[in-house]
Amino acid sequence: MVAPKEFLDFVDNNADAFIQRLGEAVAIKSISGDPACRPEVFKMMNWVAQKFESVGVEVQQVDLGKHIMDGQELQLPNAVLGRIGNDPKLRTVLCYAHADVQPANVSDGWDTDPFTLTIQENGKLVGRGSTDDKGPLLGWLNVLQYHYDNKKPLPVNLRFCFEGMEESGSEGLDELVVRESKPGGWFEGVDCVCISDNYWLNTSTPVLTYGLRGLAYYKLNVSGPARDLHSGVFGRTVHEPMTDLIRLMNTLVDVNGKILIPGVDDMVMAADVEERKLYEALDYSIKDVEQSAGAPIALSDDKVEVLMGRMRMPSLSLHGIEGAFYGSGAKTVIPAKVSGKFSIRLVPPQTPENVLPFVQKHVDSEWAKLGSKNKFELEELHGGKPWVTDINHWNFQAGKAATRAVYNKEPDMTREGGSIPVTLTFAEALGVSVMLLPMGRGDDGAHSTNEKLDRSNFIEGTKLLGTYLYEVAAIAN
Amino acid sequence: MVAPKEFLDFVDNNADAFIQRLGEAVAIKSISGDPACRPEVFKMMNWVAQKFESVGVEVQQVDLGKHIMDGQELQLPNAVLGRIGNDPKLRTVLCYAHADVQPANVSDGWDTDPFTLTIQENGKLVGRGSTDDKGPLLGWLNVLQYHYDNKKPLPVNLRFCFEGMEESGSEGLDELVVRESKPGGWFEGVDCVCISDNYWLNTSTPVLTYGLRGLAYYKLNVSGPARDLHSGVFGRTVHEPMTDLIRLMNTLVDVNGKILIPGVDDMVMAADVEERKLYEALDYSIKDVEQSAGAPIALSDDKVEVLMGRMRMPSLSLHGIEGAFYGSGAKTVIPAKVSGKFSIRLVPPQTPENVLPFVQKHVDSEWAKLGSKNKFELEELHGGKPWVTDINHWNFQAGKAATRAVYNKEPDMTREGGSIPVTLTFAEALGVSVMLLPMGRGDDGAHSTNEKLDRSNFIEGTKLLGTYLYEVAAIAN
Repeated sequence: MVAPKEFLDFVDNNADAFIQRLGEAVAIKSISGDPACRPEVFKMMNWVAQKFESVGVEVQQVDLGKHIMDGQELQLPNAVLGRIGNDPKLRTVLCYAHADVQPANVSDGWDTDPFTLTIQENGKLVGRGSTDDKGPLLGWLNVLQYHYDNKKPLPVNLRFCFEGMEESGSEGLDELVVRESKPGGWFEGVDCVCISDNYWLNTSTPVLTYGLRGLAYYKLNVSGPARDLHSGVFGRTVHEPMTDLIRLMNTLVDVNGKILIPGVDDMVMAADVEERKLYEALDYSIKDVEQSAGAPIALSDDKVEVLMGRMRMPSLSLHGIEGAFYGSGAKTVIPAKVSGKFSIRLVPPQTPENVLPFVQKHVDSEWAKLGSKNKFELEELHGGKPWVTDINHWNFQAGKAATRAVYNKEPDMTREGGSIPVTLTFAEALGVSVMLLPMGRGDDGAHSTNEKLDRSNFIEGTKLLGTYLYEVAAIAN
Repeated sequence: MVAPKEFLDFVDNNADAFIQRLGEAVAIKSISGDPACRPEVFKMMNWVAQKFESVGVEVQQVDLGKHIMDGQELQLPNAVLGRIGNDPKLRTVLCYAHADVQPANVSDGWDTDPFTLTIQENGKLVGRGSTDDKGPLLGWLNVLQYHYDNKKPLPVNLRFCFEGMEESGSEGLDELVVRESKPGGWFEGVDCVCISDNYWLNTSTPVLTYGLRGLAYYKLNVSGPARDLHSGVFGRTVHEPMTDLIRLMNTLVDVNGKILIPGVDDMVMAADVEERKLYEALDYSIKDVEQSAGAPIALSDDKVEVLMGRMRMPSLSLHGIEGAFYGSGAKTVIPAKVSGKFSIRLVPPQTPENVLPFVQKHVDSEWAKLGSKNKFELEELHGGKPWVTDINHWNFQAGKAATRAVYNKEPDMTREGGSIPVTLTFAEALGVSVMLLPMGRGDDGAHSTNEKLDRSNFIEGTKLLGTYLYEVAAIAN
């Protein structure tokens, strides 16, 4: 079974209406990180609930409680759960997306009003949330529209989980997913999960994503004087916390990205010839990474090394220092207490728990070598496990078949360097295959100015999501 | 000739009136760094002008032009020049002080209103500007009051230079000093300069100060990506500016304050046995530095080493990083452009000009070793030369004699670790001996909360300033 031609034609014939609907969604300023926009996030979740109800989905809005943001207590946006189909003979697919967006102001450098979807002549649909993640969310709605309008049965049972806090830490979502994954819960009977919230590697080749890096975030706290000191009065009389901290931070990573904390890189097996082939096969060049970074600063001229550095190796980044002088100008302060921030992106088998002892031992040892009279402690902030799943599962076979059918291409099989924490939550709570099936391109500029989704990605992407469901139904276990 | 007993008695008998007048001065919020307080600084300079006129001084307020502060153009506070006496048989002493103050709010942790001079039972006069520098400025006024009220001739000719921008970079003052030091200028004929704007080393022994460290302030600018990057997407794919910068900053100074830039420490001759004796003689202990830093973090247990580290050795402090993440929390950013700030406190024969080549060569060499594809440049911000003068000049002999007469003690002969740039301006423009003759104690808390001047320091300090003038008149060339 493949997707019916009528479905593909319906999508083409209704493209303008779908784009207009995307414009409605973009116009709602559902910025989850701005307390002043919180009513807009509620409005957005209502809009999503109504649209999915209008195509036959049973919808429930779930109160996720309150949280504190910028010092004020706020009601968390409702999550929207949906279900349609309950045929025990059919597979059940759970689809996740989010309806909140990053902040955006014209003054940030947008060429057009970020909350007015602007259709450019080159086919770019420009607006905040167009690709992250309102476009993909509406892709599912478009698929349902065909079946509802034409009274066609869906090839699978569907469950939906839409949230309004993804850009602000997905607060409250983990508990909801765990609860609804239990017997009797909304997600009972789910056979696989499809998440459309990431991007192609480049601008031409579709992607299926089977891995994400985890994260362990640390603070190196060094303190000494009771208060900030004047460098004229105290320079070369006392141990300076900044001097000590810089020396510690210098022991963590080298200029080429190698992690200098003994044991951390060693936890990850080197790639064998077979695995390297996976990366060689990807439609990607050093130019791509340099273009996206905006400068010729790739760590290697070997695309496999660069791709593996991002996808299957841990990385350590130094983010900054809290407590030191950060302004412009020339302040002659000796800061009394400084905290160096760094994080390690983790890959299997690393976890925040099994990496911590290596980090602790290393920084304690380096601190002891310094011989400073200042005080030091390592503090661990938030963390998350990495995720890698089996690319031979029927869920991925369905994704590949759908990609071939819609795009006439083999998809790039990728791992993402970043984290989408809900992925791991679904995988662990449901114990089923989770696949990331992106709609947008690598240059969409999610979180950036002039965020866009190409018209063809929205329309072909809608076909992809629908075709995927038919392939899930068709494929053997 | 020594100071007449009637002068000393007059000071004691008028102590309460002098303190009340100090309270009037403290009540004027002459915060030069706060544009909103600029009218108060003008009010303060008017007050100073009127008070000095009222004791027979010829006064001129000098317009120093405009400047930009916090993005707005402001009129600089007037400088107040004064002169009294023109007897060619007498020496001419130029006295400098400033009438502006640091910001202060009760919310910073003051126990009382900072702009109400509070007389504590233990004799502390608490208020912003009490010791820095309104107390010393009024010390000169008190001395003049005696001579005016009692129609007594002054033992020297006096010139005054009072400014209202010392806490904000003394803008406009250098030009004024240079101009007025020329033939026909207000400072023509000046034989020596006395500046009262620093502090004793401790709380019990008066000080004469004969040296100040200079300053060279640098930025290490490292840039790479066109914009900040996400550490998940780019970690271990590109050269990260923060990694490079931390490695550079690590090559500058060791944990014990030794400057690692080849050549910089070497420019300064080691102290011989004789010079060490100067530091051994100072009334100072490791406890003093630890108490003022608020923690047991002195670089050495040898007081001579610690004092020389502050007074006669260069020091290098790392102040912070501009452009990196500095907030609380856990932002996973790879900053695109970071600027490491550090400064070197200079001692003779170092100058910003002769130190720069060493710094440039070192950071260029260390940068080349890194092999990063990012971009790097060294930027030099403001600087100032160090100053050391001859402690055997009659100006210092007069200061010593006055200290013995008033305090019955030998003064500690000190060099300050910080800078008072106008010192060097006076020394170079006039070519005469400059002496720093502090009024307050080491624990006065200038720039800090609960700034105070001890009543005894204000009153005995007034006697000291007056007696110094008589000793200047008495001492042979």
